[in-house]
Amino acid sequence: MSNTTKSKKEKEIITEYESQVKEIRSQLVEQQKCLEQQTDMRVQLLQDLQDFFRKKAEIESEYSRNLEKLAERFMAKTRSTKDHQQYKKDQNLLSPVNCWYLLLNQVRRESKDHATLSDLYLNNVITRFTHVSEDNMRLLKKSKEIIFQLQEDLMKILNELYTVMKTYHMYHSETLSAENKLKEAERQGERQGRGGEAVFSLRTEDRHQRRNAARKIQKMKEKRQAKYSENKLKVMKARNEYLLTLEATNASLFKYYIQDLSHLIDCCDLGYHAGLSRALRTYLSAEYSLETSRHEGLDILEGAVEGLDPSNDRQRFMETHPTAFTPPARFSFQPHMGDQVSQITALPQVQAELLLRFQQLQSRLSTLKIENEEVKKTSEATLSTIQDMVNMEDYDVSESFQHSRSTESVKSSVSDTYLSKPSLAKRRANQQETELFYFTKLKEYLEGSNLIAKLQAKHDMLKRSMAEGYRADIMTTSRRRNSHSRHQDTGKAIPLIVESCIRFINLYGLQHQGIFRVSGSQVEVNDIKNSFERGNDPLTDEENNHDINSVAGVLKMYFRNLDNPLFPKEKFNDLIACVRTESLYERALSIRKILTITPRPTLVVMRYLFAFLNQCKAEASH
Amino acid sequence: MSNTTKSKKEKEIITEYESQVKEIRSQLVEQQKCLEQQTDMRVQLLQDLQDFFRKKAEIESEYSRNLEKLAERFMAKTRSTKDHQQYKKDQNLLSPVNCWYLLLNQVRRESKDHATLSDLYLNNVITRFTHVSEDNMRLLKKSKEIIFQLQEDLMKILNELYTVMKTYHMYHSETLSAENKLKEAERQGERQGRGGEAVFSLRTEDRHQRRNAARKIQKMKEKRQAKYSENKLKVMKARNEYLLTLEATNASLFKYYIQDLSHLIDCCDLGYHAGLSRALRTYLSAEYSLETSRHEGLDILEGAVEGLDPSNDRQRFMETHPTAFTPPARFSFQPHMGDQVSQITALPQVQAELLLRFQQLQSRLSTLKIENEEVKKTSEATLSTIQDMVNMEDYDVSESFQHSRSTESVKSSVSDTYLSKPSLAKRRANQQETELFYFTKLKEYLEGSNLIAKLQAKHDMLKRSMAEGYRADIMTTSRRRNSHSRHQDTGKAIPLIVESCIRFINLYGLQHQGIFRVSGSQVEVNDIKNSFERGNDPLTDEENNHDINSVAGVLKMYFRNLDNPLFPKEKFNDLIACVRTESLYERALSIRKILTITPRPTLVVMRYLFAFLNQCKAEASH
Repeated sequence: MSNTTKSKKEKEIITEYESQVKEIRSQLVEQQKCLEQQTDMRVQLLQDLQDFFRKKAEIESEYSRNLEKLAERFMAKTRSTKDHQQYKKDQNLLSPVNCWYLLLNQVRRESKDHATLSDLYLNNVITRFTHVSEDNMRLLKKSKEIIFQLQEDLMKILNELYTVMKTYHMYHSETLSAENKLKEAERQGERQGRGGEAVFSLRTEDRHQRRNAARKIQKMKEKRQAKYSENKLKVMKARNEYLLTLEATNASLFKYYIQDLSHLIDCCDLGYHAGLSRALRTYLSAEYSLETSRHEGLDILEGAVEGLDPSNDRQRFMETHPTAFTPPARFSFQPHMGDQVSQITALPQVQAELLLRFQQLQSRLSTLKIENEEVKKTSEATLSTIQDMVNMEDYDVSESFQHSRSTESVKSSVSDTYLSKPSLAKRRANQQETELFYFTKLKEYLEGSNLIAKLQAKHDMLKRSMAEGYRADIMTTSRRRNSHSRHQDTGKAIPLIVESCIRFINLYGLQHQGIFRVSGSQVEVNDIKNSFERGNDPLTDEENNHDINSVAGVLKMYFRNLDNPLFPKEKFNDLIACVRTESLYERALSIRKILTITPRPTLVVMRYLFAFLNQCKAEASH
Repeated sequence: MSNTTKSKKEKEIITEYESQVKEIRSQLVEQQKCLEQQTDMRVQLLQDLQDFFRKKAEIESEYSRNLEKLAERFMAKTRSTKDHQQYKKDQNLLSPVNCWYLLLNQVRRESKDHATLSDLYLNNVITRFTHVSEDNMRLLKKSKEIIFQLQEDLMKILNELYTVMKTYHMYHSETLSAENKLKEAERQGERQGRGGEAVFSLRTEDRHQRRNAARKIQKMKEKRQAKYSENKLKVMKARNEYLLTLEATNASLFKYYIQDLSHLIDCCDLGYHAGLSRALRTYLSAEYSLETSRHEGLDILEGAVEGLDPSNDRQRFMETHPTAFTPPARFSFQPHMGDQVSQITALPQVQAELLLRFQQLQSRLSTLKIENEEVKKTSEATLSTIQDMVNMEDYDVSESFQHSRSTESVKSSVSDTYLSKPSLAKRRANQQETELFYFTKLKEYLEGSNLIAKLQAKHDMLKRSMAEGYRADIMTTSRRRNSHSRHQDTGKAIPLIVESCIRFINLYGLQHQGIFRVSGSQVEVNDIKNSFERGNDPLTDEENNHDINSVAGVLKMYFRNLDNPLFPKEKFNDLIACVRTESLYERALSIRKILTITPRPTLVVMRYLFAFLNQCKAEASH
């Protein structure tokens, strides 16, 4: 306790005390007001949030309805179309139509999600805010009751302090006056004592009188001393009480301001932040969920866009119009009224002419092919340019959604992409020009290649026929010998299993790497073989569902397992010897010698087989 | 070539051929129609897509406008409030207001993004679809031109086939008739030959005549033979030509159906899928970007929701209302008119009374503390129950956005959460009941603790004063001896370094484990010591930024380093001897005997130090 404090006058002290109390009292009122104000602001904020979400629910609901209407309008339109019937039937759509349906689905999904959002705003989020608001007002009321009580208590303590201070003042004043009176008495005593000494010669009566007066003064002095001591004790007690109450008051003030007020403000806040947080988190959960759902839908749609497949669609298009696109049957040779010949006849009379024609075809074809190859290359290069143009990756618009500080910059960026007018027009003109060139070249190429196909067919046939003519020539003898059975011979001479396997390999296997070298599946080989043995032809299906190596295996096995091999054992060594002959002419003569004594059915099969193997060799060397 | 084909009559063949050609011709027409149909469907689809996006752009634009209006309405409202002014000023908002602003920002962001979406639909996506549509029609036109050309060529080839077939038929008919004529001639020759032998006895004239006739017949035979041979050659050539043309026709047909048609359908498709894909990807890019932007905004808002901070907000609330919440100055003792005493006076006259009062306070306090501790525990448990209630994590609404097969199940799930009416009402009633109980207990606790604070303050003061009183008592002698300097003594008797360290330890360190046992930082100890030596008091700052062990270290060092130790060396052994005295009474007497001859300043410091150490001991045993 500072000893520098100067003692003040009572009035001054009281004034100071009262102004201090007045200040505290106004603070207490101010505190109540602040808390009320805070709650008012909160209630206002919660009201705003409710209004906000009510209005946003309306907006979301309207948005949802509009999207639903939009989806429904186009759904209804497509539901009646042929495509949709087909969709219902086999779920097997053209890829762009699939995208279109998924786009409509996405809009419906968004519509539903925004309806759910609206519903959650109205029936969950807003209700939560209402509850927070109610809770806040209720808690304020209760907290204020307690604060009011505490403030009342505080004021009582201050009043008590006032009372004990006044008591102290009173007793102290009394002590001071008692002290003064005592001092006065002491002064009187002293004065009388001094007087007594000075007037020693006074008369006895006077002296008696004076003695009486001295006794009186002494008595008074004692009385005043007692009074003073009593007062001093009283003031000591009062001061002690004042000091204790002062200490208690300060402790209470400290506790109220530092502890209780915070505590009670916390009571007002109880659950406010938590409630607000839960309401906002409900909103966030709804928004995030909407986003997830939307994203899922977009991913599905993106998958469909990635699945846009022109060649698959072309296939489906052609399949759905079989009458238009099924290739017609080949035109077959129609022999005229009993004409027995159904092949190119390269008899000596026309052989030279055919040869000339063949040579002409050959040279014409080689020129045409070179020319057309050039056209083809140009056309393909042009196509690839067009493809680059149409596959340009210019669809990223994410820049338009970047939120920079200034609002203006958002809008302007939209036109910066693909669609800026001058460059777009130029690009499109360029694309059309390229297209035009492509079509010119394509037409040129197609005409050229059609001519080539036509001439090539003739060329190939002539080539085959001239080889046949040679064979026909060398086989005149044998044919003449049993000309009556020729028809039957050629009809049945080739076993079904050989003919079918060769047909199959011709159809699917000539470009196949390792044909006759790679072995097929033994199981499949046996299956096919067994089927042939039962009299069926397992290779007639239009679909190529057999492994080419297995089919080759069947053919090899057939020849290997013949009871009488195609080349009889007794002639095998002779044939091998022939192959060793250097001179081609002599080799041919030797082989001919051996083969002339070979039975005709064997020869027919040999010829068939070698024609096929020759073809294989030609393909392989191609 | 199948040998089973029976030769047919000319008319039959022609009919068959013509029907085959007719079928092909109708196929070709059908093909053109299919391609047109396909393009029509595509154009229709693209038209639908354009209409769809035009309408969706309207919806997005309207949605955007509504959101903008919504945000603007509340922004305008808040812009005028005091909070907003403050926001502008220091960016330092109450956390719920911060959430509210970010919520409005999010709506503005969504508004802008949906406007951008609408803009991109109208000015990018739709334009792309228009271009795809234009391109598709243009490509169809060009492809059709080529297809038409190819079909014309094909028909020419078929006509050629017809012509060569007819030629073959003609020549074959002629050959047949020539053969018949030849055979007739041969028959005539034979008949004549047979007749010649039979009528050997005919006359020479007749014989001559017959020879003539035979020669004639022979000539005719030769002529017919020549005619037949010529015809045979002609038919052979014609047949060859027919066969070659047949091959070429089949090759051309094959090429047209298998290669060229696919090729030209691809030409029609050129860029259709790519264009569609780019348009849809633009749409997807826009939607994904919108989603990203929206997600960013939601994350910011989520951060703000996580940042909801009641205690920080309370702090800010109290800081913004300093007049209401700044604790008032302590009430200080006001001595009355020249009263020199400013402390509790525990003179013998009142000592007993004070002691009694102290004891009463002590026992009252211990009862009150036990009781109030119970109330406190109950109140805290209740508060924690409430806190559990208000922090319930019931805000996940993601279930509502799951898209199951049936449409109905989406809506129904909304009411399954937090807000199902009966459970909600029950929970809220429960919460309010708990609140009520909490406030009752809180009030009880606060009243109890306020009383305790008040009594504790008096108790502590009494305790201190009684110790002082005792000192006052025992020091009467010395005080009398130099009563004029008493004031100065008590004022200066305790060195600043001792008083300040003890005050600091009293304030912050009494509950500190290991005080005086654990050594502090030597650097800090020296710092504090040096500061004291320079005449400063480094421990007066209100903040406790000194290590309590260092402060204790300073105190220990001070006593250790005194030139004249507190307990003089010559008296040390006597004092130790005293402590060994069993009887407490005799021990006290011995100590008193030693201390009465101790100089007063030393005694004052000892008393101060022991009072403090005693308090430490009491705290430690508490």
